[in-house]
Amino acid sequence: MQVKPIEWRDTMIRVLDQTRLPSEVIFLDVADYVEMAAAIREMRIRGAPAIGVAAAYGLALGAQAIEARTKEEFLVKLGTVSRELASTRPTAVNLFWALERMNRAAGEGTAISEIKAALVEEAKRIERENEEADRQIGRLGAELIEYGFTILTHCNAGALATAGYGTALGVIKAAHEQGKQVRVIACETRPLLQGARLTAWELIEEQIPLTLITDSMAGHFMSRGKIDCVIVGADRIARNGDVVNKIGTYSVAVLARENSVPFYVAAPTSTIDLSVKSGAEIPIEERSPEEVTWIRGTRIAPEGVKVANPAFDVTPHRYISAIITEKGVVREPYGEGLKGLF
Amino acid sequence: MQVKPIEWRDTMIRVLDQTRLPSEVIFLDVADYVEMAAAIREMRIRGAPAIGVAAAYGLALGAQAIEARTKEEFLVKLGTVSRELASTRPTAVNLFWALERMNRAAGEGTAISEIKAALVEEAKRIERENEEADRQIGRLGAELIEYGFTILTHCNAGALATAGYGTALGVIKAAHEQGKQVRVIACETRPLLQGARLTAWELIEEQIPLTLITDSMAGHFMSRGKIDCVIVGADRIARNGDVVNKIGTYSVAVLARENSVPFYVAAPTSTIDLSVKSGAEIPIEERSPEEVTWIRGTRIAPEGVKVANPAFDVTPHRYISAIITEKGVVREPYGEGLKGLF
Repeated sequence: MQVKPIEWRDTMIRVLDQTRLPSEVIFLDVADYVEMAAAIREMRIRGAPAIGVAAAYGLALGAQAIEARTKEEFLVKLGTVSRELASTRPTAVNLFWALERMNRAAGEGTAISEIKAALVEEAKRIERENEEADRQIGRLGAELIEYGFTILTHCNAGALATAGYGTALGVIKAAHEQGKQVRVIACETRPLLQGARLTAWELIEEQIPLTLITDSMAGHFMSRGKIDCVIVGADRIARNGDVVNKIGTYSVAVLARENSVPFYVAAPTSTIDLSVKSGAEIPIEERSPEEVTWIRGTRIAPEGVKVANPAFDVTPHRYISAIITEKGVVREPYGEGLKGLF
Repeated sequence: MQVKPIEWRDTMIRVLDQTRLPSEVIFLDVADYVEMAAAIREMRIRGAPAIGVAAAYGLALGAQAIEARTKEEFLVKLGTVSRELASTRPTAVNLFWALERMNRAAGEGTAISEIKAALVEEAKRIERENEEADRQIGRLGAELIEYGFTILTHCNAGALATAGYGTALGVIKAAHEQGKQVRVIACETRPLLQGARLTAWELIEEQIPLTLITDSMAGHFMSRGKIDCVIVGADRIARNGDVVNKIGTYSVAVLARENSVPFYVAAPTSTIDLSVKSGAEIPIEERSPEEVTWIRGTRIAPEGVKVANPAFDVTPHRYISAIITEKGVVREPYGEGLKGLF
């Protein structure tokens, strides 16, 4: 199976609607950048690297529709498109990274038609590089996986999240392809159940043995010696190695250290934000209370209950055994190691 | 509000069906002990102290229906009833403790009619003592709560779980009644959502300020300094102070210690099992995979996915700041302290 969460089709972008998985495999035909912004905001496409690709294609699509007489006028209008896409989600840095790259590419062209074509090419290049980075992360990460390992993962950092091969799941897939007989324990990942819905779906498609658990069970299985290592993705990595990732990641990291289980983060270098000193500086998206009080159309809590719903948390670098990037595996001291990648 | 999860009505037992809360408040009229066993197994009534009371009433009800000519014949038939009730759930010790007390009471009587009456009285006494123990736990526990505390709790250890005032929530209610302006953060408690459904419902009824979170958020809020202490109930406490409680409790305890947040367990002495040396000896109930793959009638994971569903975990005593019982607050060394209660 080649899961394709996003596909450029010249006049539109085909997006696999991840909010409908696993019960329905439905594709959306995204016709303009406003629809793409909505698809990102509503998490029809999600995962830090994938929303980078989605934003790049969204900008390319938006660019095609711009009518302008001068390059300056074109760039002003492109700025509006870019700001709309940038406003969708605050935490994953790949979104801003991809838009910045696209805007730089736009600045380099001269004729408007040339810039429009260059933007499509740049978006395709981002997607391709993303896929190549995933493969390399898989190769490097698989070296950390021993034969017969049981690997715990949280959320979904698979092909669905990267528009490529996957980061955390890329490592697992690479180890699996090498015949290492790995098994996966997937946390369901409330509130939006990316583990139960997306990781389970991807691993069943890949025929990698999987056991689904609730998030509250991760510690129990670690304490019983059932987990050999943890691998997760990342939404943004600070200069000091602090990792912002899906809510619940911090808990898993603390439990891993308490039980002497290695805790790995797999992410492309586009996820690293050297401009932020530590995780404390990274904005944490607060999402709608209904994501907690409703599950797939069913209300589970009393009317009027107050809810908190931070979508991410910060895992301080001291809990992280290694960060696996396409340019190498970095360990403490992260400050030096991460800077050395660039 | 006086939440009454179970009520003796002479010819039947009225049970509040907790699987239907909070969307529906529905009572079951339990007509015989087989129905009571089913109600416990299906978690229509749940919570360690409450299932002790339910088993006691179930045995009393079963006893009324026994036809026997001799005390010996009566006790043989009562044994069948008792074994059926004991087979419902393996982890919480209060179930076995209550049945043992009931069987002892049965042994003491002479005439069958006298024994039948004594069993009803003993069950009522268990319920009454349970309520008194909760009140005393509340009083003693509230001394540990300071003005303005934000208290995290997992699962539901309230009136619904004890057929009384509540253990963990009893402490919170007592502090609230003393005007301590406490706030509660409740973990939703997957898979069966006792936090979202039952704790949220109970606290809204009691008008105690509450914020509902997913289980994966507990660590995040502790790391941000938002939680002053944790209080949970217990299903069984071993001689060394290890606590078996709802799955996820261990994770919360580890996260609490990592963030220097006191972690309290509130439970009546009937939850303490001096016959087991440590938590490792306590059987952990494995429940149906459907509790994980379905939420309130909606499937959330792909068909055919493998699932683990342990209903409880073990929190080693070293993570526990204090165990609050009706006979006193016990701290390390737990071995001595717990034995001293009896």
